[in-house]
Amino acid sequence: MKMTATKLMQRSLLGLKDLSRDEIEAILDRAAYWESRPNKIEPVLQGKFVANMFFENSTRTRFSFEMAEKRLGAEVLNFTAAASSVQKGESIYDTVRTLESMGIDAGVIRLKPIGVLAELAESVRVPLINAGDGNNEHPTQALLDLYTMRKHFGRLDGLHVAIVGDVLHSRVARSNLWALHKFGAKVSFCAPPNMQAPELDAPYVSFDEALRADVVMMLRVQLERHESGMLKSAEEYREHYGLTAERAGRLAPHAIIMHPAPVNRNVEIDDELVEHPQSKIFTQMEHGVPIRMAVIERAIL
Amino acid sequence: MKMTATKLMQRSLLGLKDLSRDEIEAILDRAAYWESRPNKIEPVLQGKFVANMFFENSTRTRFSFEMAEKRLGAEVLNFTAAASSVQKGESIYDTVRTLESMGIDAGVIRLKPIGVLAELAESVRVPLINAGDGNNEHPTQALLDLYTMRKHFGRLDGLHVAIVGDVLHSRVARSNLWALHKFGAKVSFCAPPNMQAPELDAPYVSFDEALRADVVMMLRVQLERHESGMLKSAEEYREHYGLTAERAGRLAPHAIIMHPAPVNRNVEIDDELVEHPQSKIFTQMEHGVPIRMAVIERAIL
Amino acid sequence: MKMTATKLMQRSLLGLKDLSRDEIEAILDRAAYWESRPNKIEPVLQGKFVANMFFENSTRTRFSFEMAEKRLGAEVLNFTAAASSVQKGESIYDTVRTLESMGIDAGVIRLKPIGVLAELAESVRVPLINAGDGNNEHPTQALLDLYTMRKHFGRLDGLHVAIVGDVLHSRVARSNLWALHKFGAKVSFCAPPNMQAPELDAPYVSFDEALRADVVMMLRVQLERHESGMLKSAEEYREHYGLTAERAGRLAPHAIIMHPAPVNRNVEIDDELVEHPQSKIFTQMEHGVPIRMAVIERAIL
Repeated sequence: MKMTATKLMQRSLLGLKDLSRDEIEAILDRAAYWESRPNKIEPVLQGKFVANMFFENSTRTRFSFEMAEKRLGAEVLNFTAAASSVQKGESIYDTVRTLESMGIDAGVIRLKPIGVLAELAESVRVPLINAGDGNNEHPTQALLDLYTMRKHFGRLDGLHVAIVGDVLHSRVARSNLWALHKFGAKVSFCAPPNMQAPELDAPYVSFDEALRADVVMMLRVQLERHESGMLKSAEEYREHYGLTAERAGRLAPHAIIMHPAPVNRNVEIDDELVEHPQSKIFTQMEHGVPIRMAVIERAIL
Repeated sequence: MKMTATKLMQRSLLGLKDLSRDEIEAILDRAAYWESRPNKIEPVLQGKFVANMFFENSTRTRFSFEMAEKRLGAEVLNFTAAASSVQKGESIYDTVRTLESMGIDAGVIRLKPIGVLAELAESVRVPLINAGDGNNEHPTQALLDLYTMRKHFGRLDGLHVAIVGDVLHSRVARSNLWALHKFGAKVSFCAPPNMQAPELDAPYVSFDEALRADVVMMLRVQLERHESGMLKSAEEYREHYGLTAERAGRLAPHAIIMHPAPVNRNVEIDDELVEHPQSKIFTQMEHGVPIRMAVIERAIL
Repeated sequence: MKMTATKLMQRSLLGLKDLSRDEIEAILDRAAYWESRPNKIEPVLQGKFVANMFFENSTRTRFSFEMAEKRLGAEVLNFTAAASSVQKGESIYDTVRTLESMGIDAGVIRLKPIGVLAELAESVRVPLINAGDGNNEHPTQALLDLYTMRKHFGRLDGLHVAIVGDVLHSRVARSNLWALHKFGAKVSFCAPPNMQAPELDAPYVSFDEALRADVVMMLRVQLERHESGMLKSAEEYREHYGLTAERAGRLAPHAIIMHPAPVNRNVEIDDELVEHPQSKIFTQMEHGVPIRMAVIERAIL
């Protein structure tokens, strides 16, 4: 299955930044088709092999992809790097090339080092699907977020989405920002100074203003990343940037709460809000499977 | 596949304590059916997804479940917590709810923290199968033990089963005790003082008396758990509570030796006894697969 | 599926040393058949269960076996020992016997301790396939090497194969040596004094002479194994025993470069040579799948 480089890049999904609104919409529509199917398995990818290559561990994301792949009838091979081993770019390249040599039809890849994925996609001859790329993009997460918003509100344009937390390190924030802008949604960020990414094209607002949005998307915070500066403790973070029950009480009745999970309960979001009527957190996970079915099908068929 | 809470609890298998003798017998009979089938795979669960969620690692138990699931034609997703990560109740809950959201039909779960499984089963909407719950219950292990005894002796009532070793920490001892009592079997324990569980309804006997039982079930000892007290060394443990070749020589000719495995050779059981003619250790493992087929089928069909 | 011990040993693949030229040729020919099939999956092993038991981790080898097993339609169960746990012979035996009890049809096994595999194969009642046995043999690697040479040169007899690097610790070197000799090929070694294995029946030559061979097979070096002696640093090793671009320039135009992978770029082989026109490194990996299909099919059918 050798393809031209262009065709291959069209099948790969490295990020949403370079996808058109039409391309994104086609994926969302196809996911809606998959969500509506009564049978769990429709083996359109029977006889195809997909490798899940997780150089950075993530049980949930791997599980969601594996579920999607198996629902499409594909054969699945899992590779998870040992938690301890830090993989350099060239060893990632060698592993991916190796699996390619063995005859996989597509690779789902999650990795940490910056810039490696883009290089990889130019060198290998199978479509690659980004399952988390450093702090660059996490396109299937943003697609399922968009899907969740579109399903709830019936549209994306005109929505105000406030993304709260560690924007600086967040690939989820970036993929959502770039995709939402294509659909005419307004994105605001709310973050402490040491977690802001000034190069991104969205205004920083106060938490009070963020609470007036249609969607309040909380980001997972990893306090251990921020040794210096203020907000060292979970309590302090919660006080200033956590979605507390009190703050959630000020949301508009039509507004929804989102989070890419896993959540830090009582740090960036209060325990009782995780399954709050306005929370879409587990609904997001539900949507991950049809989104990934659409993305994998697009890569191979 | 939303079910009522009652129906769901009937499909789940959290322990044997709350199961009736009839329910247990139905599982044993169905296992006998599965053991007798000539074909390895009978795809009665085709299109169904089972997640093996091992928050506490166990290669053998996971393997046995996976074999059972695949023999029934189910799709299998494995999750094993990193050896290092200690999972708290709420993060276990979040993971299980996540996998539930993704559309699994049943979850097999093994975990360490006490009391979490019971709470979980009330919160999620898929049947759960206990594959090892702290020091509370390990129902599929006890079911395969019962199956092995019933197959060997033709009955359970009237049997005398002596369980020897670390009763205090043993979920195997508890599940066996509660189930065997329902069938009119007599259970005795034999354990050093610091490994006894006085709240359990069975008498403690000497090793000599234990050796007069129909079944001598040795428990795996984890000496590292018992820092204080006597019996610190493997040699000392073996001398007082190990099934040595000498002791095995005093067993009745019709008696059998059991062990849930993995064994510590020459600690709780002598090397040469593992595959002794009276030992059922590998037979027990053989029976694990049909037992788990019966349990998983019961959860989903 | 109980077999006689002899038949079982004929189905197992423990090494190439004790295989006849005809037996090896039959495997190579069958691999050629599998390589030529247009469909990825031909389910000749439907309903059969293969366990990949990796007591020593290796993503690539496990992946290659799993791909082969799935292409044959077998059900696959993976077991990988935690990186940290050192497995002793008896615990390896207990694990393999356990999986055997559960009803696997064949086991693929990779392990470190010397002498354990040979003992195992005499004790268990399922065919075993060696996927890496201490520093003894790695037969499927050598088979894919032979396959690659035979496909490239059209023959094996009369070829000169120079194997360069840590011969002492290399099961790849041993399996290739013993197999190549059966086909009338000439094998030379090139290694620093502390990496030589004088008991093996091949002459040690200078690197200059090795470069005159038809095949230059570089071995992965693990410098951390060699605390004493010269050649402690990667730079020093490369200078004396690395295939540098300069050295590769002196190869005959028809000669090929091989390496069992994973490579240490710029240690035993220069970065730019990995995908050099004369390099067969990724081609070797490609051939691993049909070779392993032939070996697994032979074990079970």
